[in-house]
Amino acid sequence: MTNYTPPTEEALRAERVARRNWGRWGDDDEAGAINLITAEKRLEAVALVRSGRTVSMCRDYPKVPAPHNPNPAQHFMRMIDRGESGGVVDYYGFIYHGQTMTHIDALCHVWDDGGMWNGRDPAVEITSDGAQFADITAWGDGIVTRGVLLDVPRHRGEPYVTADRPVHGEELREIAEAQGVEVGTGDALIVYSGYEAFREQHTEAGGPGLHASCATFVRDRDVALLGWDLMDARDPATSMPWPVHGVLYSYGVALLDNALLQPLAAACAEEGRYEFMLMVLPLRVPGGTGSPVNPVAMF
Amino acid sequence: MTNYTPPTEEALRAERVARRNWGRWGDDDEAGAINLITAEKRLEAVALVRSGRTVSMCRDYPKVPAPHNPNPAQHFMRMIDRGESGGVVDYYGFIYHGQTMTHIDALCHVWDDGGMWNGRDPAVEITSDGAQFADITAWGDGIVTRGVLLDVPRHRGEPYVTADRPVHGEELREIAEAQGVEVGTGDALIVYSGYEAFREQHTEAGGPGLHASCATFVRDRDVALLGWDLMDARDPATSMPWPVHGVLYSYGVALLDNALLQPLAAACAEEGRYEFMLMVLPLRVPGGTGSPVNPVAMF
Amino acid sequence: MTNYTPPTEEALRAERVARRNWGRWGDDDEAGAINLITAEKRLEAVALVRSGRTVSMCRDYPKVPAPHNPNPAQHFMRMIDRGESGGVVDYYGFIYHGQTMTHIDALCHVWDDGGMWNGRDPAVEITSDGAQFADITAWGDGIVTRGVLLDVPRHRGEPYVTADRPVHGEELREIAEAQGVEVGTGDALIVYSGYEAFREQHTEAGGPGLHASCATFVRDRDVALLGWDLMDARDPATSMPWPVHGVLYSYGVALLDNALLQPLAAACAEEGRYEFMLMVLPLRVPGGTGSPVNPVAMF
Amino acid sequence: MTNYTPPTEEALRAERVARRNWGRWGDDDEAGAINLITAEKRLEAVALVRSGRTVSMCRDYPKVPAPHNPNPAQHFMRMIDRGESGGVVDYYGFIYHGQTMTHIDALCHVWDDGGMWNGRDPAVEITSDGAQFADITAWGDGIVTRGVLLDVPRHRGEPYVTADRPVHGEELREIAEAQGVEVGTGDALIVYSGYEAFREQHTEAGGPGLHASCATFVRDRDVALLGWDLMDARDPATSMPWPVHGVLYSYGVALLDNALLQPLAAACAEEGRYEFMLMVLPLRVPGGTGSPVNPVAMF
Repeated sequence: MTNYTPPTEEALRAERVARRNWGRWGDDDEAGAINLITAEKRLEAVALVRSGRTVSMCRDYPKVPAPHNPNPAQHFMRMIDRGESGGVVDYYGFIYHGQTMTHIDALCHVWDDGGMWNGRDPAVEITSDGAQFADITAWGDGIVTRGVLLDVPRHRGEPYVTADRPVHGEELREIAEAQGVEVGTGDALIVYSGYEAFREQHTEAGGPGLHASCATFVRDRDVALLGWDLMDARDPATSMPWPVHGVLYSYGVALLDNALLQPLAAACAEEGRYEFMLMVLPLRVPGGTGSPVNPVAMF
Repeated sequence: MTNYTPPTEEALRAERVARRNWGRWGDDDEAGAINLITAEKRLEAVALVRSGRTVSMCRDYPKVPAPHNPNPAQHFMRMIDRGESGGVVDYYGFIYHGQTMTHIDALCHVWDDGGMWNGRDPAVEITSDGAQFADITAWGDGIVTRGVLLDVPRHRGEPYVTADRPVHGEELREIAEAQGVEVGTGDALIVYSGYEAFREQHTEAGGPGLHASCATFVRDRDVALLGWDLMDARDPATSMPWPVHGVLYSYGVALLDNALLQPLAAACAEEGRYEFMLMVLPLRVPGGTGSPVNPVAMF
Repeated sequence: MTNYTPPTEEALRAERVARRNWGRWGDDDEAGAINLITAEKRLEAVALVRSGRTVSMCRDYPKVPAPHNPNPAQHFMRMIDRGESGGVVDYYGFIYHGQTMTHIDALCHVWDDGGMWNGRDPAVEITSDGAQFADITAWGDGIVTRGVLLDVPRHRGEPYVTADRPVHGEELREIAEAQGVEVGTGDALIVYSGYEAFREQHTEAGGPGLHASCATFVRDRDVALLGWDLMDARDPATSMPWPVHGVLYSYGVALLDNALLQPLAAACAEEGRYEFMLMVLPLRVPGGTGSPVNPVAMF
Repeated sequence: MTNYTPPTEEALRAERVARRNWGRWGDDDEAGAINLITAEKRLEAVALVRSGRTVSMCRDYPKVPAPHNPNPAQHFMRMIDRGESGGVVDYYGFIYHGQTMTHIDALCHVWDDGGMWNGRDPAVEITSDGAQFADITAWGDGIVTRGVLLDVPRHRGEPYVTADRPVHGEELREIAEAQGVEVGTGDALIVYSGYEAFREQHTEAGGPGLHASCATFVRDRDVALLGWDLMDARDPATSMPWPVHGVLYSYGVALLDNALLQPLAAACAEEGRYEFMLMVLPLRVPGGTGSPVNPVAMF
């Protein structure tokens, strides 16, 4: 990133307001940039499939407590006894937001003092019964689109992104160029930062990740969904709220948090290409602020 | 179904044992008939896509108590206050087995006195920490295959299957023929019985559904997954355990319970075809006996 | 109740405001009328004990779904395996408010447009993390006081209070007189309405109970806690919010909901006295709006 | 403890079997040593009350994750909107066994290869629906008895019991003597080990506590309930299962785990006496292996 000067926080804050997608798909729109995934876009994704190879991007359901998993997911079993036959049912309970469980954020998940997605007021739209606007059911028919993986560790020649060097939008541009792949309208942009290697060395919560300038890259390319394994960089130097998560409420871009990307990065390298058909199928929870998902890439 | 004589319970019980798929994919196999979905099979499914139209087969997350929903799904909200910005997270908790939530059953879910899938002993394999064999992670890379819908109400000219007339395997054969569609190896067979129309008239739990002879149809065609909206018929005339659910442990066939099929049936009628690419992406829960899913069909 | 004319709703509403206990124990007080239970009052309760007989007023933990139990309490088991030894732990999860589980309401539980207990604003004090004022920890040292049971079915010669004839404050006065028992400052007033007999005949939610005029009786006697088995009458003739539950926010009186009173009524009849030492020991949940409890009477 | 030689593990194991209370209160008895708390015993406890001072022995509901609280208790809020009035209900969910939440263990909670309380077989009695024998409802009428506190830190002149020096039964005898208090039949023995001071220095799970020889002391005095704040010592030198927890299944003695004892110890010192009326009122959970409680001492 020679000669690259990062934008100031002031500039980033101004851009986050000036380039909002509010009203772009109507004042009552709850689907945001997922609107960019038309039937044609899906056909484009389908056309990428050649080998039929599938790769899951879903981490294991996190039942084990840890510093980075302070509220472990619950799993309880209950037997069914019917004499000659039997069975077992189970209970799943979880707060899926956070840093462990693979999930998608609905547009209602976060906001700043300018408001929620499309300018709505969280004090009105969010109740203890659920979100009344931009909940996860807005994407209830599932998300199938072209996915593009950008592999930061491979580009850097380092196992994982470190706290002192967050990923900037300019670096994403460089990696795409180096990988020979375009990122365009309606795409799912998947950024691999080396979570597993990071987690081997660091058990604490929080960590490195993407710089706020990545939001500019996302907005420039009209990306529909941003997937990642290390999320926003925890940057003490900035007071900017939701540095990259802000694409939810400003640009209407879906976020796929805590994706498992190591196997996908390996598959891309083996396949020799960084694009694929991506399937993300959130549960239909009325009022829900997101959903656990098992995203799958098909080559 | 002229001249059709249903098989006796004795015959059905004998067949359930004689035609087991145990050992077919190895003694330690946990994936069962999903093994039939090879990369080639997935490519066959992808090749069915023409319009890019997607249809969800997922019911809404069932939060409202009802006689048929005795253990309503839980949803709680928690606000995040960060001064100028904010957000909201939520908790989902549910027993997804039962008659309300759209979910997939893992092969470990049920058994009879002959044992679990592949002959395993539930007393050994099922612990209060989870299933140690044939759990839902066996299908962790997702299920993408050719789906075929058989529309019983349309064929019968009645709004829904009634208790006095369960769907037999022979009728499935007739419907497939009438619809001009084949059901074959590795397919997902989706049987629409008119749940929504049934539920408008009946608020009690239980109900009509598929006769045990449908399991024979499933086994004959080497189906990989059976999806349905009304499940096994509650037939007081038989003491057979798990009349159709038995395909899980005997044949290794996945079950997609409580699917929302009315919109899919309408789409098939509109598209003039009863085959499509089906995507079912279960969460990766180690030890889990199944997973809530949002199955999506693409035409 | 000859010559008794019930107060108008207007009069009851006016009284609910005019006789508020706000500020009586200080502007920041969160304990309300439980302040009336001094060490001396506890000694008075202890002095009532003669036989050492104890009677629980706690219903069984309600795990079974029913129309009056739409959100059944959860109970899951998990085994501990340690080789030669073992054990089992369990999970309890519940929304204890409602019509099934025996529990005590904290003063923060309900309000009207005049505000919460002591004039606080629920929009300020209630967050999704818990109540910041008048939560259940205000009574964290437990409640031990003189209890008095008023037995309505016995007085009426009917098995349970019916919907067309709610219990009025005047009737409480009559019953106390007939039973030869006084109700005074700091007492726990326990009103038995015949829940079990009612429930045998009625499976629906809601039901008969106490008329708003009982709140006047409670306020006149400076009662500290009101316990009951059938709660507020669902009176379609009135639009008054929280007819009797209003004693929480107006008078600072604790409510013991869904108490099991049939055994206590039987014990009182056998013992020939309607007063006893009552023990109610709520869990210390910071921010909690109440607690499940097992109230015990000792004679 | 001059000239004190601790018993060997072999001797302790032999004693645990030889002195079992199985059958003492009948072969089907589920209440164990709580049977020793007769009406007369309760009257003895009541007779101890002089000042009416109450002290809670309940820790705060542990919502905050920590190394010693790996499965934090859940608390969710839900608003009720009724126009001019309103309210709030909440959800509590928790695994109360462990090292954080104040709770009582039912006799079914643990076992060794000799069996559960009264010789029952856990493989038969414990199901995924709950315990069928010796569950917490055996003590459903509550426990009110004489309580005796033994204050180890005060006796040792150290802030808390350390890992290298667990509390032996012989030391309990010495402390009782030094405090001038007897421990006898049907009493609740409460042993304070300095949990709060320990926790300030140690954030890890596990820790110091009582040596297996304390079980002998408990059995010798025919104690009905053992309460403590630091539980069994984690002694790597012994392979004995449930060193002190074994009093549950061998002697039928109730355990009050994770009690808050610092305030009680302070109160005892101030009052100049180490005996009081103790109230422990477990919830009535059919099949439950214990209950969260708020134990209260009255002086």
